[in-house]
Amino acid sequence: MNYPGGLKKQFQNNLNHGNRGMVLEDDLNITNEYYRNNDIAIIYKKPTPITINHVNYPSRKDAVITEAHFKIPSTTDYNGVYKGKYIDFEAKETRSKTCFPLSNIHPHQINHLQQIIKHGGIGFIIVRFTTLNKTFLLMADDLLEFIKLNKRKSIPYNYFAQYGKIIKESWSPRLDYLKVLEGD
Amino acid sequence: MNYPGGLKKQFQNNLNHGNRGMVLEDDLNITNEYYRNNDIAIIYKKPTPITINHVNYPSRKDAVITEAHFKIPSTTDYNGVYKGKYIDFEAKETRSKTCFPLSNIHPHQINHLQQIIKHGGIGFIIVRFTTLNKTFLLMADDLLEFIKLNKRKSIPYNYFAQYGKIIKESWSPRLDYLKVLEGD
Repeated sequence: MNYPGGLKKQFQNNLNHGNRGMVLEDDLNITNEYYRNNDIAIIYKKPTPITINHVNYPSRKDAVITEAHFKIPSTTDYNGVYKGKYIDFEAKETRSKTCFPLSNIHPHQINHLQQIIKHGGIGFIIVRFTTLNKTFLLMADDLLEFIKLNKRKSIPYNYFAQYGKIIKESWSPRLDYLKVLEGD
Repeated sequence: MNYPGGLKKQFQNNLNHGNRGMVLEDDLNITNEYYRNNDIAIIYKKPTPITINHVNYPSRKDAVITEAHFKIPSTTDYNGVYKGKYIDFEAKETRSKTCFPLSNIHPHQINHLQQIIKHGGIGFIIVRFTTLNKTFLLMADDLLEFIKLNKRKSIPYNYFAQYGKIIKESWSPRLDYLKVLEGD
């Protein structure tokens, strides 16, 4: 949803594929709600960053934004606190069966994850291969290591299989990524 | 900027008083940029939460939001990481010389700060008395204690003077609230 350029494509994907593009985001929002309601962690998705150009006031109490544009995000979409620790991650889906295109993550966001680790936070990405129905958590240091050592524009599925951790789907919590984070 | 109801008032205040309503936000954004550039902390203001009702696509690459509404925020405006710790705060200005009206902070945000403390994060509010030209940091536990013990709809200036800490303004960093946080 966040990229000015990718937005139309995502909207079209959603229309063409039964709103599939939003499933991971919904799963994470439901999971974060579970974490909050069960006193496990306080983690939220940030609002979509926009630039507001024009606001109308049809009545004293109402404000309607009539012109705004999507901004390229400087940070990741999700952050919060878990056992006193700062948690920060980005979540993306791909329909590819073989790799995750790095064009899905903006360079600002990769740099942001690097900064988070440097300052003692816990950073990672959650990537879902929708066609394979597999969701991985990959720690930011493994992501950064791949980018440092490779000039490839996508991360092979095998890299996730080797260095990432599978997040299994269940009824509740839907996508227990904090359990996976604690895993080893 | 965040409250649907308070928005028009804030816009008018800005027009009437030389954009004074935005000064604290600007000071904090500049300070956070200083913290990032000098490797002190990674703290950002969250985007304003909105509900998007309609998007137009005047060209293949462009997406223009043509109808959106402001949402009541569920969290505070600022969060991030400082020395591995989760930092979370809300910042508000008042023109009153005697008190800070609690109507400036939404109940969701007060509840959010309570949750943050419970999970080991560092929560606080930054309040500027613009007419007195004084800016205070008040820890969330002192804020919650006041609300618990008092049925008043505003916090007296003296409460900030007694339990809060003054944040002095300087050239750079503009408003060194992390130094004040470390203060004692």
